[in-house]
Amino acid sequence: MSDAPSHAVDPGPPPPGTDSGLLAPVRAGTGPEALLSDEAWVAAMLEAEVALARAQAALGVIPARSADAVAKAARSARIDTAALARDSRGAANPVVELVPRLTAAVADTDPEAAVHVHLGSTSQDILDSAAMLLAARALAAVERDLARTSDALAALARDHRGTPMAARTLGQHAVPTTFGLKAAGWLSSVLDAAARVRDTARALPAQLGGAAGTLAAYEEYARAAAPREGQPPPGGPALAARFAQELGLADPPIPWHSLRMPLCDLGGTLNAVTGALGKFALDVQTLSRTEIGEVAEPAATGRGVSSAMPQKRNPVLATLIVSAARQVPAYTSVLAQSMLAEDERAPGAWHAEWQPLREALRLAGGAAHTAAELAGGLEVHPAALRRNLELTGGAVVAERLNAVLAPLLGKAGAKRLLADCARRAAAGQGSFGELLSRELPGTPADGLRAGELLDPEGYLGAADGLVDRVLARHAAEGRRRTEGGEPA
Amino acid sequence: MSDAPSHAVDPGPPPPGTDSGLLAPVRAGTGPEALLSDEAWVAAMLEAEVALARAQAALGVIPARSADAVAKAARSARIDTAALARDSRGAANPVVELVPRLTAAVADTDPEAAVHVHLGSTSQDILDSAAMLLAARALAAVERDLARTSDALAALARDHRGTPMAARTLGQHAVPTTFGLKAAGWLSSVLDAAARVRDTARALPAQLGGAAGTLAAYEEYARAAAPREGQPPPGGPALAARFAQELGLADPPIPWHSLRMPLCDLGGTLNAVTGALGKFALDVQTLSRTEIGEVAEPAATGRGVSSAMPQKRNPVLATLIVSAARQVPAYTSVLAQSMLAEDERAPGAWHAEWQPLREALRLAGGAAHTAAELAGGLEVHPAALRRNLELTGGAVVAERLNAVLAPLLGKAGAKRLLADCARRAAAGQGSFGELLSRELPGTPADGLRAGELLDPEGYLGAADGLVDRVLARHAAEGRRRTEGGEPA
Amino acid sequence: MSDAPSHAVDPGPPPPGTDSGLLAPVRAGTGPEALLSDEAWVAAMLEAEVALARAQAALGVIPARSADAVAKAARSARIDTAALARDSRGAANPVVELVPRLTAAVADTDPEAAVHVHLGSTSQDILDSAAMLLAARALAAVERDLARTSDALAALARDHRGTPMAARTLGQHAVPTTFGLKAAGWLSSVLDAAARVRDTARALPAQLGGAAGTLAAYEEYARAAAPREGQPPPGGPALAARFAQELGLADPPIPWHSLRMPLCDLGGTLNAVTGALGKFALDVQTLSRTEIGEVAEPAATGRGVSSAMPQKRNPVLATLIVSAARQVPAYTSVLAQSMLAEDERAPGAWHAEWQPLREALRLAGGAAHTAAELAGGLEVHPAALRRNLELTGGAVVAERLNAVLAPLLGKAGAKRLLADCARRAAAGQGSFGELLSRELPGTPADGLRAGELLDPEGYLGAADGLVDRVLARHAAEGRRRTEGGEPA
Amino acid sequence: MSDAPSHAVDPGPPPPGTDSGLLAPVRAGTGPEALLSDEAWVAAMLEAEVALARAQAALGVIPARSADAVAKAARSARIDTAALARDSRGAANPVVELVPRLTAAVADTDPEAAVHVHLGSTSQDILDSAAMLLAARALAAVERDLARTSDALAALARDHRGTPMAARTLGQHAVPTTFGLKAAGWLSSVLDAAARVRDTARALPAQLGGAAGTLAAYEEYARAAAPREGQPPPGGPALAARFAQELGLADPPIPWHSLRMPLCDLGGTLNAVTGALGKFALDVQTLSRTEIGEVAEPAATGRGVSSAMPQKRNPVLATLIVSAARQVPAYTSVLAQSMLAEDERAPGAWHAEWQPLREALRLAGGAAHTAAELAGGLEVHPAALRRNLELTGGAVVAERLNAVLAPLLGKAGAKRLLADCARRAAAGQGSFGELLSRELPGTPADGLRAGELLDPEGYLGAADGLVDRVLARHAAEGRRRTEGGEPA
Repeated sequence: MSDAPSHAVDPGPPPPGTDSGLLAPVRAGTGPEALLSDEAWVAAMLEAEVALARAQAALGVIPARSADAVAKAARSARIDTAALARDSRGAANPVVELVPRLTAAVADTDPEAAVHVHLGSTSQDILDSAAMLLAARALAAVERDLARTSDALAALARDHRGTPMAARTLGQHAVPTTFGLKAAGWLSSVLDAAARVRDTARALPAQLGGAAGTLAAYEEYARAAAPREGQPPPGGPALAARFAQELGLADPPIPWHSLRMPLCDLGGTLNAVTGALGKFALDVQTLSRTEIGEVAEPAATGRGVSSAMPQKRNPVLATLIVSAARQVPAYTSVLAQSMLAEDERAPGAWHAEWQPLREALRLAGGAAHTAAELAGGLEVHPAALRRNLELTGGAVVAERLNAVLAPLLGKAGAKRLLADCARRAAAGQGSFGELLSRELPGTPADGLRAGELLDPEGYLGAADGLVDRVLARHAAEGRRRTEGGEPA
Repeated sequence: MSDAPSHAVDPGPPPPGTDSGLLAPVRAGTGPEALLSDEAWVAAMLEAEVALARAQAALGVIPARSADAVAKAARSARIDTAALARDSRGAANPVVELVPRLTAAVADTDPEAAVHVHLGSTSQDILDSAAMLLAARALAAVERDLARTSDALAALARDHRGTPMAARTLGQHAVPTTFGLKAAGWLSSVLDAAARVRDTARALPAQLGGAAGTLAAYEEYARAAAPREGQPPPGGPALAARFAQELGLADPPIPWHSLRMPLCDLGGTLNAVTGALGKFALDVQTLSRTEIGEVAEPAATGRGVSSAMPQKRNPVLATLIVSAARQVPAYTSVLAQSMLAEDERAPGAWHAEWQPLREALRLAGGAAHTAAELAGGLEVHPAALRRNLELTGGAVVAERLNAVLAPLLGKAGAKRLLADCARRAAAGQGSFGELLSRELPGTPADGLRAGELLDPEGYLGAADGLVDRVLARHAAEGRRRTEGGEPA
Repeated sequence: MSDAPSHAVDPGPPPPGTDSGLLAPVRAGTGPEALLSDEAWVAAMLEAEVALARAQAALGVIPARSADAVAKAARSARIDTAALARDSRGAANPVVELVPRLTAAVADTDPEAAVHVHLGSTSQDILDSAAMLLAARALAAVERDLARTSDALAALARDHRGTPMAARTLGQHAVPTTFGLKAAGWLSSVLDAAARVRDTARALPAQLGGAAGTLAAYEEYARAAAPREGQPPPGGPALAARFAQELGLADPPIPWHSLRMPLCDLGGTLNAVTGALGKFALDVQTLSRTEIGEVAEPAATGRGVSSAMPQKRNPVLATLIVSAARQVPAYTSVLAQSMLAEDERAPGAWHAEWQPLREALRLAGGAAHTAAELAGGLEVHPAALRRNLELTGGAVVAERLNAVLAPLLGKAGAKRLLADCARRAAAGQGSFGELLSRELPGTPADGLRAGELLDPEGYLGAADGLVDRVLARHAAEGRRRTEGGEPA
Repeated sequence: MSDAPSHAVDPGPPPPGTDSGLLAPVRAGTGPEALLSDEAWVAAMLEAEVALARAQAALGVIPARSADAVAKAARSARIDTAALARDSRGAANPVVELVPRLTAAVADTDPEAAVHVHLGSTSQDILDSAAMLLAARALAAVERDLARTSDALAALARDHRGTPMAARTLGQHAVPTTFGLKAAGWLSSVLDAAARVRDTARALPAQLGGAAGTLAAYEEYARAAAPREGQPPPGGPALAARFAQELGLADPPIPWHSLRMPLCDLGGTLNAVTGALGKFALDVQTLSRTEIGEVAEPAATGRGVSSAMPQKRNPVLATLIVSAARQVPAYTSVLAQSMLAEDERAPGAWHAEWQPLREALRLAGGAAHTAAELAGGLEVHPAALRRNLELTGGAVVAERLNAVLAPLLGKAGAKRLLADCARRAAAGQGSFGELLSRELPGTPADGLRAGELLDPEGYLGAADGLVDRVLARHAAEGRRRTEGGEPA
């Protein structure tokens, strides 16, 4: 890059390292993005510190007043996130430098409480718990958006339960199907993904183990506090249980500093979310191709426009979703790789998790948000569905004709005849149906009621029943949500 | 590569493309490997064809005699796997060319039955069902080996419940822990993985959808068979249910030709298996380093030898397991990526799944087999554990001393003193304990009962209780297995 | 998987673990697959042993006769690959067990030579050198197939240099382009990939470092041989250079047992190969969609057939290529991860390389083989290209109209008018061209020579010149190949 | 996550989505991070717009005054990055909304110039060119830090050229080596990586193709400008060449909107960078383990401290580097996957590149910055190197003894004896050397000069020469840098 010219644009004041989604518009401005900014992580780490103090106060290890002071300081502390990030290079994680900042804030209002900050704790307890807290919030947002997406897809499946269209395999027209079944397929996967989100969210564990997972320092301080005469000091596991309760997270059987199954599970679930949504989006991209035109994205001012071509209406929502679905499996593979964590805290494997976890969560969140928008306004064009279905002049039901003709012509003979007619039709020698009827021996031809046999609507198999199955599952799911008092 | 010399070794007869695990010794000769050879896949595809014929016979769509003929031909057919593989390039999958081979074998014994082979079916129904069948068998093998591994780890946790050792974080001695807690951690993750294996295996679905998931051809043939007067022909979903039952697989709500959640789930579970085992193996590698020497792999003739160095005893079982754990997340990321499957059958995404699925299954199988061997014979060296624990002359309990000294010297003062003593001890100026006692003001020093405070065994926190928790979970799991009549 | 039924098909004799490409038809039966079987790896390891013996003989470390005996034994040795694979679990690599087998074979004919087998060597020297040897051969095959692919793509670019078609962005018609430019784009990437293959192949290094990269044992044996009076014994580096020469590989500056840049480079190059070919294949899949029909794969008996649908002509070659392109980046990511290799030989990172390397090489080989076939026979359908280009009634040149109308109507005004006409045309209210001409103010409309402006062939920009550039590069490359005496 | 308590900490004003490296401290506050913020991307996109205007002015397509106005507006425009990011959801990329903002800023000062903004251009031209510009700058920073790292590693190799230490394979002592050779190995890989960075940086191409790669609109506007009588309007390729020159980027043969080799190459190079540095860092982690203690990270206030354990001195710089090396291959695998880009602009594959590219660049940048710091201050502890080397009582030279004893005892006999002594020594029955000398038959034992043979320094093979080779390469590289006038 020699000879770089002199008109470099001054990016203004020292670049603040902002990531507002400029390079990931699928999440730009969506809820999960904001939930997972550096500021939100700092806030969550502070929440973990507060929860620890409250749990210790509840068990008599520190005075209740100290816990109040920590909570107050955490609320009012103004942490310079960029400075904290830079300082976190010293210990390779941000907690070591966050603690003195919090301690100073506590000391400002209650000097005696300062000694009770982060008591007996270790960086990983705070950071892992914060991560789970944020994951829980992000998954809750994902779950809500998957519910909205499901409702919209169910409506599509219901409305188009009987709308025939060409099914495509390897890009070629295969046999008829219905748009309802296609939408039901999308819905089925989204319901699967939502179930995994729910299960994973419920199991997200708090982390409390102390320096190396024995809870020894927590117990040491508990002993020192000697809370009640004649009573044993509260054990570490009791503190861990209370801490998890304070945070609304699960209480795991043992500390998991280097037993990273929760991250592996999270990764699998996020793959399921963007995979299910990505399949839907990919189909929308295909079906909205200029030559196909069977669906269109919901119109909105400024959406789908091109900077160069005024006529364009690009499938941008689908593109955003696909962009997320192509990235997430790579990020979650880092989480799976990080299970290879040595000793009681792994130097590198643990540290490699944080950014891919955040990015996978916010991409999944952005994809779910975008999918709800896409599903909610998807335009279906029945005329195009019909036009395309007729494009092969009946060859789209060749499979059926094969079943009918095989007893008459032999299996191989039937297949050969049909392939031959298809080839000649493709070569422009006539419509498939006409060519076929000409080739068929007299009586059978009459008896075949050619028109009816060629009618795609007569060859939809169990499409209706399959749609109903998925809709029933969706309805049951909706009832569960309502009864559980979950937010719609 | 010019001037290649002339002594190239003749690899003998035309290379047959064997993969016996030469490049993946972690699975060489283990059960799951054999379960997943090309031959096994052909056999499983034939099983799927047999199951289809039996299901159709059971519903009256084809004669029972035909199903018997298919079953007989499938058993006796001798398929040239290499030739089939080459021919499968024509349709990009092996089923299209397998069907005429099977049909010919059926025709040999029962010409009338030949027409009932693969009736109404599509390649993906057969291949996906075969894949799930093989996955189920491989997972069953994995589950058995995880159970063996768990039993051995539980014994280690029990036997060494009270054996102290140094916990290490970022490679440095942190605080004391016990070998029992370390083993309990490994066990906890293995139990987690086993639970995921069980859940995933139970949910593996058969695939039956016909050309594009509507089941239309199956229904067409059922109608043509007109089995019983006055009764409707059996619907596609009924056939799918029966087919799944024949194969011992789950009956999914709808065909999943391009809804690949089952593969995504399988991937997540295999990540969990090799991740959990890989963590165990990685720790064994670390603890058996020459300088550490706390454990050794089970001795066996020829194991761990080096081609060059007679004194070596390499941690080869652990190395095999780690080699698997480093690969599997990459293979399963292909499965997650393959959820981006367009239309009713994806040209490429589907085809990209097969090999990574097989390799991930057999690596997980080999890793579980190897882990059972490793856990079952792991040597623990208490003397080395003790020697290393004392290596820092007491600094390993600095966290505790901090807790004790902070009230006397202030939080910062205590930390400073301890860090200072640790630094001077590391610089060879004396033992940490001695240096510290010299620095402490008179009375407190007496009162500190230095010997006791420096004793690592007095600072094990809740290690015992945590071990007991995991052992209780393992015991409950064992009871479940016994009651369920599962093979040990 | 309870209640599994009893009709399991017996897979016959003990499953041999064959992998003949049944699950990877993209490579089934192609050259690189055979080049990389377990048998081929054993043969290559024997070649490395022979090369070592020859190099040592050349430097006087062992008698020439011994080298001959090793070469002879290597040629005639019959190694049971499956047994070797199983035995390789003992040392976690196959060399440790291969050496005694080779030694025994040498001893059969020349007992005194037996002591000179593998003299001073280590497993990794043999296995890494064998891997590079096989990689070199596989890359040579890839290079030949890329050359064939390039030639075919160049012919397509030349033949269709002036054939207009619709360019598509985000799946929507954008502006006109030519089929020639599309083919030139494919060609350009294939030429890029071929250049990387050539550079990488040339740099593939032999490996000779001894137990831990110091070459000490090689030097020890050289000293003991005391070849010539008054002369120093040959140093390790001299031996390494000769060894590399014997194998036709590069001589690296230092042993690279745990410095894995060569594998990282190989991975990048294989990504380039399947990436370039995958882009070509993906476009073929798109352009051969039923609704688009602009290209078709070369017809061949049995190719592209469906087991269910007689009318189908599936883009199977493209599908095979895409299946490879979707897998290779995952496999090569393992190679990149394996650079994280500790100490002088990494326990796990090294072992994890072998299988992904092999699979990536043979997938790239199969993809290149398949691409040559696809490019060589691709059918282009000019009528369909023309029909689709006219599908939007002129909107495909809206960008140009924008340029023309902006000075008349203002930038925003022009864009608004064109977007409006496009929307109304899409809604079926008339053709874009007619609607537009109706809206234009009198004089300008006349002056616009509407017909000409709407003609896609008048808006092809620099397409021709860009095609010529790429063709010139291809021609230069062809001359280089011819002059270099390379096989076509 | 039910029952979430009420003490959630208010994260303050609407979270701005900051990413200052809190979750990636390896890059926090380092140069490449700032170079790649959202603000920097906006600035680079503006630079691309300016370069386009300048190139068009140079060729007479627009007035020079317009180009000046664009440049001035770009410099002074104040873009709200977060708002731009949100708005970019409308077109799935940020350029579409950036253009009107820039246009408005131009119009403010020179209304006539406003029409010349982004003339004939397309979003991808601007975004891709901006990405390459930023990549070039980030790579330049990486190259500088690799040079600093190399210099420091060369000093280590030189200083410790003769310092013996134990080489380790599979975690076990293997044979002696030198610290110099270990450092030379690190250096060798870093030099390899630096060469790849340089080559890649030099080849980074500008992007200019217009809507679909034909340059049609650029030519249309050039024609309209009719710059000079009797002269043909400047062609698109001439404009592209000038545009590339303005940006200091390479001029590619054809537009590469969906031919993504440059991204694939970038990915491979970034893998090389973090792989080479990661290997160095991983070794530092190992060698600084408490039991090994052969190296220590450079001391600095606050570095390596633990929040819990005052005695800890964690290898944090190495940990930061490893955290990057574990992530980058996953991100670059997305880039490799994105070569599967359909049509003239891929809906999703392109959009998936941006974030992984940025993150891989800044992680590589942060890793290089950190590695320079680590290498520059690495402490080597010769006493520990010596102590560990003697740990096996001479078994570390068993390979040499094998070479010496084999002629006396036979190959198998020698190996058996040595393995036996090693096992007994490990079992505490005496030192390896003593046990061995006791076992050796009289005369040979005398003749063996046992002391000398057991001396590790006598068995260093070609270590010195290998170090010299790498140092010579480094020196040559340094001369190249100096002569090239590159910044040190």
